[in-house]
Amino acid sequence: MRSPIPDYLAEALRSVQADHSGATADYIPELAHADPDRLAAALCTVDGHIYSAGDAAAEFSIQSISKPFVYALALADRGFDAVLEKVNVEPSGNAFNEMSVEPDTGRPLNPMINAGAIAMHSLVGPPGATPEQRVDRVADGLSAFAGRRLHVDEAVSRSEMSHAYRNRALANMLRAYDIIADDPLVAVAGYTRQCSLLVTAEDLAVMAGTLANRGVNPLTGRPVVSAAVVRQTLSVMATCGMYDGAGDWMTRVGVPAKSGVAGGLIGALPGQAGIATFSPRLDRHGNSVRGVNLFTRFTADMGMHVMEVPPHAPSVIRSRRVLGEGDREVTLVSLQGDLRFAAAERVVREFQEHPPQQHRVAISLRRVFSVDAVARRMVLEAVRRLSLDGHEVYLLDPDEVLPDPDPGTGGRVRVLTRLADLLGG
Amino acid sequence: MRSPIPDYLAEALRSVQADHSGATADYIPELAHADPDRLAAALCTVDGHIYSAGDAAAEFSIQSISKPFVYALALADRGFDAVLEKVNVEPSGNAFNEMSVEPDTGRPLNPMINAGAIAMHSLVGPPGATPEQRVDRVADGLSAFAGRRLHVDEAVSRSEMSHAYRNRALANMLRAYDIIADDPLVAVAGYTRQCSLLVTAEDLAVMAGTLANRGVNPLTGRPVVSAAVVRQTLSVMATCGMYDGAGDWMTRVGVPAKSGVAGGLIGALPGQAGIATFSPRLDRHGNSVRGVNLFTRFTADMGMHVMEVPPHAPSVIRSRRVLGEGDREVTLVSLQGDLRFAAAERVVREFQEHPPQQHRVAISLRRVFSVDAVARRMVLEAVRRLSLDGHEVYLLDPDEVLPDPDPGTGGRVRVLTRLADLLGG
Amino acid sequence: MRSPIPDYLAEALRSVQADHSGATADYIPELAHADPDRLAAALCTVDGHIYSAGDAAAEFSIQSISKPFVYALALADRGFDAVLEKVNVEPSGNAFNEMSVEPDTGRPLNPMINAGAIAMHSLVGPPGATPEQRVDRVADGLSAFAGRRLHVDEAVSRSEMSHAYRNRALANMLRAYDIIADDPLVAVAGYTRQCSLLVTAEDLAVMAGTLANRGVNPLTGRPVVSAAVVRQTLSVMATCGMYDGAGDWMTRVGVPAKSGVAGGLIGALPGQAGIATFSPRLDRHGNSVRGVNLFTRFTADMGMHVMEVPPHAPSVIRSRRVLGEGDREVTLVSLQGDLRFAAAERVVREFQEHPPQQHRVAISLRRVFSVDAVARRMVLEAVRRLSLDGHEVYLLDPDEVLPDPDPGTGGRVRVLTRLADLLGG
Amino acid sequence: MRSPIPDYLAEALRSVQADHSGATADYIPELAHADPDRLAAALCTVDGHIYSAGDAAAEFSIQSISKPFVYALALADRGFDAVLEKVNVEPSGNAFNEMSVEPDTGRPLNPMINAGAIAMHSLVGPPGATPEQRVDRVADGLSAFAGRRLHVDEAVSRSEMSHAYRNRALANMLRAYDIIADDPLVAVAGYTRQCSLLVTAEDLAVMAGTLANRGVNPLTGRPVVSAAVVRQTLSVMATCGMYDGAGDWMTRVGVPAKSGVAGGLIGALPGQAGIATFSPRLDRHGNSVRGVNLFTRFTADMGMHVMEVPPHAPSVIRSRRVLGEGDREVTLVSLQGDLRFAAAERVVREFQEHPPQQHRVAISLRRVFSVDAVARRMVLEAVRRLSLDGHEVYLLDPDEVLPDPDPGTGGRVRVLTRLADLLGG
Repeated sequence: MRSPIPDYLAEALRSVQADHSGATADYIPELAHADPDRLAAALCTVDGHIYSAGDAAAEFSIQSISKPFVYALALADRGFDAVLEKVNVEPSGNAFNEMSVEPDTGRPLNPMINAGAIAMHSLVGPPGATPEQRVDRVADGLSAFAGRRLHVDEAVSRSEMSHAYRNRALANMLRAYDIIADDPLVAVAGYTRQCSLLVTAEDLAVMAGTLANRGVNPLTGRPVVSAAVVRQTLSVMATCGMYDGAGDWMTRVGVPAKSGVAGGLIGALPGQAGIATFSPRLDRHGNSVRGVNLFTRFTADMGMHVMEVPPHAPSVIRSRRVLGEGDREVTLVSLQGDLRFAAAERVVREFQEHPPQQHRVAISLRRVFSVDAVARRMVLEAVRRLSLDGHEVYLLDPDEVLPDPDPGTGGRVRVLTRLADLLGG
Repeated sequence: MRSPIPDYLAEALRSVQADHSGATADYIPELAHADPDRLAAALCTVDGHIYSAGDAAAEFSIQSISKPFVYALALADRGFDAVLEKVNVEPSGNAFNEMSVEPDTGRPLNPMINAGAIAMHSLVGPPGATPEQRVDRVADGLSAFAGRRLHVDEAVSRSEMSHAYRNRALANMLRAYDIIADDPLVAVAGYTRQCSLLVTAEDLAVMAGTLANRGVNPLTGRPVVSAAVVRQTLSVMATCGMYDGAGDWMTRVGVPAKSGVAGGLIGALPGQAGIATFSPRLDRHGNSVRGVNLFTRFTADMGMHVMEVPPHAPSVIRSRRVLGEGDREVTLVSLQGDLRFAAAERVVREFQEHPPQQHRVAISLRRVFSVDAVARRMVLEAVRRLSLDGHEVYLLDPDEVLPDPDPGTGGRVRVLTRLADLLGG
Repeated sequence: MRSPIPDYLAEALRSVQADHSGATADYIPELAHADPDRLAAALCTVDGHIYSAGDAAAEFSIQSISKPFVYALALADRGFDAVLEKVNVEPSGNAFNEMSVEPDTGRPLNPMINAGAIAMHSLVGPPGATPEQRVDRVADGLSAFAGRRLHVDEAVSRSEMSHAYRNRALANMLRAYDIIADDPLVAVAGYTRQCSLLVTAEDLAVMAGTLANRGVNPLTGRPVVSAAVVRQTLSVMATCGMYDGAGDWMTRVGVPAKSGVAGGLIGALPGQAGIATFSPRLDRHGNSVRGVNLFTRFTADMGMHVMEVPPHAPSVIRSRRVLGEGDREVTLVSLQGDLRFAAAERVVREFQEHPPQQHRVAISLRRVFSVDAVARRMVLEAVRRLSLDGHEVYLLDPDEVLPDPDPGTGGRVRVLTRLADLLGG
Repeated sequence: MRSPIPDYLAEALRSVQADHSGATADYIPELAHADPDRLAAALCTVDGHIYSAGDAAAEFSIQSISKPFVYALALADRGFDAVLEKVNVEPSGNAFNEMSVEPDTGRPLNPMINAGAIAMHSLVGPPGATPEQRVDRVADGLSAFAGRRLHVDEAVSRSEMSHAYRNRALANMLRAYDIIADDPLVAVAGYTRQCSLLVTAEDLAVMAGTLANRGVNPLTGRPVVSAAVVRQTLSVMATCGMYDGAGDWMTRVGVPAKSGVAGGLIGALPGQAGIATFSPRLDRHGNSVRGVNLFTRFTADMGMHVMEVPPHAPSVIRSRRVLGEGDREVTLVSLQGDLRFAAAERVVREFQEHPPQQHRVAISLRRVFSVDAVARRMVLEAVRRLSLDGHEVYLLDPDEVLPDPDPGTGGRVRVLTRLADLLGG
């Protein structure tokens, strides 16, 4: 059987191919003269499978798409407080090249605008890192996100550097406010190399997939940044990633995203996949025209919107039965599905509203596939309270979805793997 | 067994009780003289169970928390285009009483600032509705969200009206730009009545719970607005709900939320619960001090952050076996968990990478609990392609998680409820 | 002999007549349907002679040209401190209908924008004046500036009032910040009547002429406001009178000015004349197209620019001679021209650098036509010092340009009217 | 006799000496460690006499006071259009180090803010001048304004250059918008040298005196810039010279002015004098505290306010008599004072309202001391019209205040120097 997903991607590309609106970025010849017709889409699942269509192996400079990843590296290297002290997380409502800094402190409003991104570049690596070490850390870190060694396009880097008057203005302003400590020209040079790293649509899909996979690269299996860093990064992408159209993007597409002037665009579907598109013509916001259209289509087709309320799942309580006889009588409550807060609450409520009449109480987790931290705490607390009420409590958990269950003071639980163990002697 | 959840809520209230910082809103005596020590928290699950602690039955005026609900009503009554034409969805970066309108058109930046909220009030009900009909529609609509009849606090309404110079300024400016067609004073009067509706923390939890439940009131079971309207409303709450601290709230709490100057604060946990707190002292942004602290705690304890990537669930492919013999030999692929895009992709990939050697292929959905639209399409497409490859395909679906399966042109599938039916004759 | 000035004015009107660019104000029908081709210019000298050409007797509403005059009335009625507390004097750099108020206090940036003008209207008359009394005070005061009783155009007033949503917005915002204490609608009603006063180009020339004449109406001879109030008013007109083109106007025309949307435009030539033009088509700043052109021409033709440095006048020291013989020998220093600081300094220097050898020293003021306060002080101080040096000092001052000369402690001077008195016995 | 002016200046300095408020600029050590107690005032009359008191010979860096002079040089070297294309003339309402540029074009709002000043530095000299040539042109030009060779303080220049991040930011932004064509660092280096030129209070008084004297250095007598350039420069100083307090300064002091962070402050009294003060402690606007107080005092004492309406001078018509007999009968109208527009109008009116009955008409200019261009045109037009009415017209002008009188087509006039010539044969 041939997978329908490549067909879907190819069909999606065909549907936007006729749109020649927008224009390539014109501030350097290397971007202005890029082939405007190149078009690609790629998707990387959290278990590391890549689908792609179009010019998915064509290399282009990563540009602003580097920003969320370097933000994540800075958070990882310096911690949240040190990073927040230098760059805030508020949407700017402004165009991408403006000097959106807080009036008194000079702190950039967020790390997705150039001022914030230049400041972030200066915060990667250990305190005291040299400019070269920082550039290396960025290249290494972004390569870790991509799962392969990325290289700088020296021609793009040189050309950008010779036109980088706006970024030099920003870096000097940041230096004046002591947001960065480097020589401004050196800071811009490092940031320019960062933006000139060459990627393909597939690379970007893997990078976004690493964010979707709690910071673990789905191809290499190597952790790049922590889940807490990913959460912060995705939050900032959600509110600040699409320049001055943050609200429009959040309502219409609803995926944490970032675009770059070379035509790249990424979105991270938390827990599911990273997605990337590539098409060099940009709209007036600086976002890829076809890329935005593709994402709008993806969100409709794939149900990616983070504010989409999931349809009502069947009750977590699959059944409640009394089995066995006499001393071996047992109330068996069978659960199903993924246990997060709401499901765990329902389980707790079951025991509260209908206290078991039997001395022995068993909770079956055979049809439960995941239990998050809060649900785990709540289920164990229910076990503890049942114990305190005098019940003998069993967990039927053949797949160890609730490993090492410790219900805490006064609680006691026995783990079984087979129903027969419960009913047998 | 006593539920631990009320204990948790009570303990959470105790943990913030000592914080007397902030001050009650002082622009009208009714708010300034409110008992500043009142404190409550309430939670309403999507299946309609309410937990609460503290002064959860105390009534106070809903104020700005009415904004997302009236936005939802306007979307429902007039459609997305008509509403977007009058009010945008972009974060303003400004304080709540400022005149954040687009320079040329006068269009308010979003419906969560007063200018946008006044415009929204004027868009509820059918075109041509009288001011009285609009006020009734708002009161009826918000009552439907709350699951009980809400009433206006006439004293608050009168007092606010006599101090509503800022809102009158906004309404006149909106009228000057033809954003509203009403007499500005009439518009402000209606909006003021909207803000003066009395609610309890429990009411607010139910209202937020209705958003968390795809627009269906979890208490009454009645649909109030559509899932699409809920998605739009939650998106706008996420980026614009907490005034000028939208980015800070999104990174730290990560729940679509809205606060009101009387001390209320709501958050919607999509698919799980609505949460509300009440404590009248406000910080300099106009948000309840203790409310913000409670939500910060809730998000840590309950894993509510929408950008929290779920921990890796076990594979959707629980097992793959060949059963039966001879003609009755069948490849049985057993799935588990909730099927969304990523899981469905994995299923498709299973068949693509490992084409079944048997003529008969069965997919077991016995441990699958929900299937969203995209996953349904993908599974059926896989069925269709297997058919076209010559296979005879079965769905083992005793709980009808995939009702009415139609794989489309060239596809064919038989639904069974028991494994025995597959293996038997 | 026929005066060339009417010819000049008529010729100036002809030179702009072909310019049909711009458009009448369109926010009320009364202005939109005004005859766009009407054209007038008028000039009122500080001694009360009026020249005019074109439709100089056509009446139109005064609109924003009322602002500087009502500002002057408020300064006169309440004093500088009370007025500055409510309205600042800084250029706004913004368009005329914007809400240019100081962020924290709500204080309008200057009295020439609508917010400031509404606040000014509320400050005329004694503290505690009723709205009716304030309207009367404004009508009386502006009539005093014009030298005839002005009347409200009731149709314009009604029409403006029914479209005054922006001004109502401003008034409500001012009320919210306690800049005004009135009901906002009442404040707007009063301000609207102020703007609806009917004037002719000749009236406006007299009003501007009153400013040019130190606050004394050149027609009636009656003082309207003090010289200090005039100075403040002209200063504010110079920096804020022409909306967002203040710098452009100051460099190109260089005359304190004010325009109105009905097509009026005034300029005050301090000490010389008031000038007014009338032509209803407005440019995008809201200033009369032909009016601006006429003033540009006037400034070139009449040398009106306040930053034009006057050409070097001949030395204030017309001659220095020794007359008489023996005991009657006298050093006679004859002065000429107007004595301001620089000329007085030159006189003082004459005596310092060339101390008179004679016991008797005479200063002739026969060719001096005016002496301002600083020059008077300096000349008298020179007299005092000459006295202290032992000289006998005389002022030859037949026209009493330096009346009641009191040189102060140790000084002594004798005033003569004829040279003969000096030389004779 | 000793001049009272030095006494006045000394007394003025004493009156502000006790004020130790404010602080020296702290961004470079050379300014931070300047002796904060130094205090000076100097005044230069338009005929080149200098008065001073206090530390008037102490050298300090000119800083922003260079801006109006370099603006004048740019206007002189490139013309008004070329300069206006790069820098506007509108007040910014912003602090001095902000990036006040027009959003679309990047054109600085005026030449008194740093962005505008850097742009101006790049416009001095001929097109194509090298950076070194521009620095030389600035040093030569400012020396010409000062009347002596000025030198750069190399220590200040180096120190400023090593802290000039804000200016480097501005220069890069200007370069990005093509407002300047130089390398931004080179532009900042040149501008920094300009600001580091050493001056004394007396130098500054002479420089301001050159502006007050129509562009002619009152010490050297050499023309530096044209009267048109001076007018433009003074206009921009009037509206933009005192940073964000332009309106406050214009109302309270009313003199075109400019301040510098080293503590200098200048004002130009057109046609009379240049004034300068020096005191290093600055207020929060960056203006010298004592300097502002001194100027406030000067304006009150010396009547310097440009919007001060001069007190009413006596009529330009000193007398009208009929002299002689028979054929020699003549109407003699004797004028007095300075003739500008208003006086000339009065003369014209005299002949219009009271047509001479005699064939011969004489106008005596013996007591007239200056005639400006418009007055000259008007008097000659009156002569022409009297000729056309059949009169024989004479000018009695012994001092040649109206040289080369040509009344134009149809006019005829005879110039006499003595009354006797008129009455005699």
